[in-house]
Amino acid sequence: MKVGVVGAGGWGTALAKLLTENGHQVMLWAYEQETMAEINQKHTNERFLPGVVLPAELRASTDPAEVVDGAELVTFVVPSQWVRTTAKQFASHLAPETVVVNAGKGLEIQTLKTLSQVLKEELSALHHEIVVLSGPNHSEEVSRRLPSATVVASPDLKVAEEVQEIFMSPYFRVYTNRDRLGVELGGALKNVFSMAAGICDGLNFGDNTKAALVTRALAEMRRLGVMMGAEPETFSGLSGLGDLFVTAASRHSRNAWAGREIGKGRRLEEILASTPMVVEGVPTTKAAYALSKKFQVELPIVEKMYQVLFEDYPPRQAVEDLMIRERRSETEDIF
Amino acid sequence: MKVGVVGAGGWGTALAKLLTENGHQVMLWAYEQETMAEINQKHTNERFLPGVVLPAELRASTDPAEVVDGAELVTFVVPSQWVRTTAKQFASHLAPETVVVNAGKGLEIQTLKTLSQVLKEELSALHHEIVVLSGPNHSEEVSRRLPSATVVASPDLKVAEEVQEIFMSPYFRVYTNRDRLGVELGGALKNVFSMAAGICDGLNFGDNTKAALVTRALAEMRRLGVMMGAEPETFSGLSGLGDLFVTAASRHSRNAWAGREIGKGRRLEEILASTPMVVEGVPTTKAAYALSKKFQVELPIVEKMYQVLFEDYPPRQAVEDLMIRERRSETEDIF
Repeated sequence: MKVGVVGAGGWGTALAKLLTENGHQVMLWAYEQETMAEINQKHTNERFLPGVVLPAELRASTDPAEVVDGAELVTFVVPSQWVRTTAKQFASHLAPETVVVNAGKGLEIQTLKTLSQVLKEELSALHHEIVVLSGPNHSEEVSRRLPSATVVASPDLKVAEEVQEIFMSPYFRVYTNRDRLGVELGGALKNVFSMAAGICDGLNFGDNTKAALVTRALAEMRRLGVMMGAEPETFSGLSGLGDLFVTAASRHSRNAWAGREIGKGRRLEEILASTPMVVEGVPTTKAAYALSKKFQVELPIVEKMYQVLFEDYPPRQAVEDLMIRERRSETEDIF
Repeated sequence: MKVGVVGAGGWGTALAKLLTENGHQVMLWAYEQETMAEINQKHTNERFLPGVVLPAELRASTDPAEVVDGAELVTFVVPSQWVRTTAKQFASHLAPETVVVNAGKGLEIQTLKTLSQVLKEELSALHHEIVVLSGPNHSEEVSRRLPSATVVASPDLKVAEEVQEIFMSPYFRVYTNRDRLGVELGGALKNVFSMAAGICDGLNFGDNTKAALVTRALAEMRRLGVMMGAEPETFSGLSGLGDLFVTAASRHSRNAWAGREIGKGRRLEEILASTPMVVEGVPTTKAAYALSKKFQVELPIVEKMYQVLFEDYPPRQAVEDLMIRERRSETEDIF
């Protein structure tokens, strides 16, 4: 099958590699000329997926028409705030029967929409529902073929099952779920809490502190998600709890890394300027904070993260504020 | 207030230190003469809580009568398989109005009972319900005063609130919960999954693998717990998800350590012989496996752990079996 992958960051490249190894004919869209050239000539993408050798059959291009020409499936993996402009570039080239998957994580700040909602708006001629792919999947590990599990979600389960077949491999286990909104929110919101967990580490708090934080983070995700129309159970699945675990506990997460640097006292602008990667937790904190106001849901960790990132609130004080909140019964505070 | 703590392992000693710092007059019961002497003379317990200086006011004894004499509250923190025999030693010395707390984690293999059920049977003269204290609390971190949160649970919320007051401190936040069974099962069962997570690490699988495992572990806990009469939400709280997170992700967990050693190919007997600490995940795996049969609940991770620990099943094969199970929809497999 011909498949297009839009976005040659770490995750886009890892998914393109996986799909190629699954026997598909994959064309990867790169934003930068140099990335395209490196993938086509050296079969590497050192900036975004260092140390990984890509299959020679995997081709890259910077031309949207070339990438989606004849493709039955196109997966978008672009930073959240670039999804709309990128989709606009692809809209006229996509055949209406193409199955479109979103594998990026985040929310659009201006509209507070999920990325599949943004894609739906910009790619309105598509016949099928947009499918979302999300789960606890570090690019570094998937590209090294370490056993991983993920979820593909769509209200149209038949399309989700087609996508499942395409991505499934012996080391990449794909589950289906009908609750697209819940799966998408889980993948987006966990980046906020992953930064918060990083801050705890940067301040030299312990694993006990982080465990208390993660427990309440999952409850905040669920509270907001349910108000927005998602199923509560979804947040206890791979793209909620699973992804929260992997980003809060892992050595690879760049959101946790950015949180650690903040905990150590570095300035946000300086941290963001020091990496070519996008730290999705930053715009997502802004969006989650706005959503908590819009839906009138109390999200104490999101609120403190907003104050720390955008209002210069001291991180240590933020953690202490969270620890000494007045609620005393677990069901009152956690759920 | 006079308080007794029964069991001078790492957690018992850390709780005795905390209670002393909260201004209570604490007497700690040690099984070994040497531990008692070390606590009383050097104010340390190097074997079980290395590097920590204990308050001089904290006294230890090996005599049950001396430990509980005049105590309004007595906390048991003994290895799960020793709770019954230890309780027998204390039964005749406890005043009926004493509030008894269980802070140990595990299940009694022979009877498949929780530790508060065992205490209730052996201390049948008590007026109050047994209270359970459980949460993501590494002794090392609590004794270093790192911010931690925990749960005290009892069907009698008034007694739970009294216990909350006694343990609460600026760095140890105590929540209440009415679902004692759920809180107790969360604290016990997580040790099985913590060992499983350790095995993944020992086999050099990645964080993605562990995240998938932890997600499904929480679902197994919840499934079994609900069949036994616990509330499903309890397992998303501090003594379910929180404790699972801290033991699966942490550097301190001895269950995760034992799992890692198994993953590396060491024999269980050899691992257990190399530490003075009790690895609660081992008896708890046996008990959880028996409970899955008794209540006819499918617990794939528990079953594989049983095969690995007691039937010489190869750990790598166990992880691979779990990854390639047939179920394909997330709600089918995870919940």
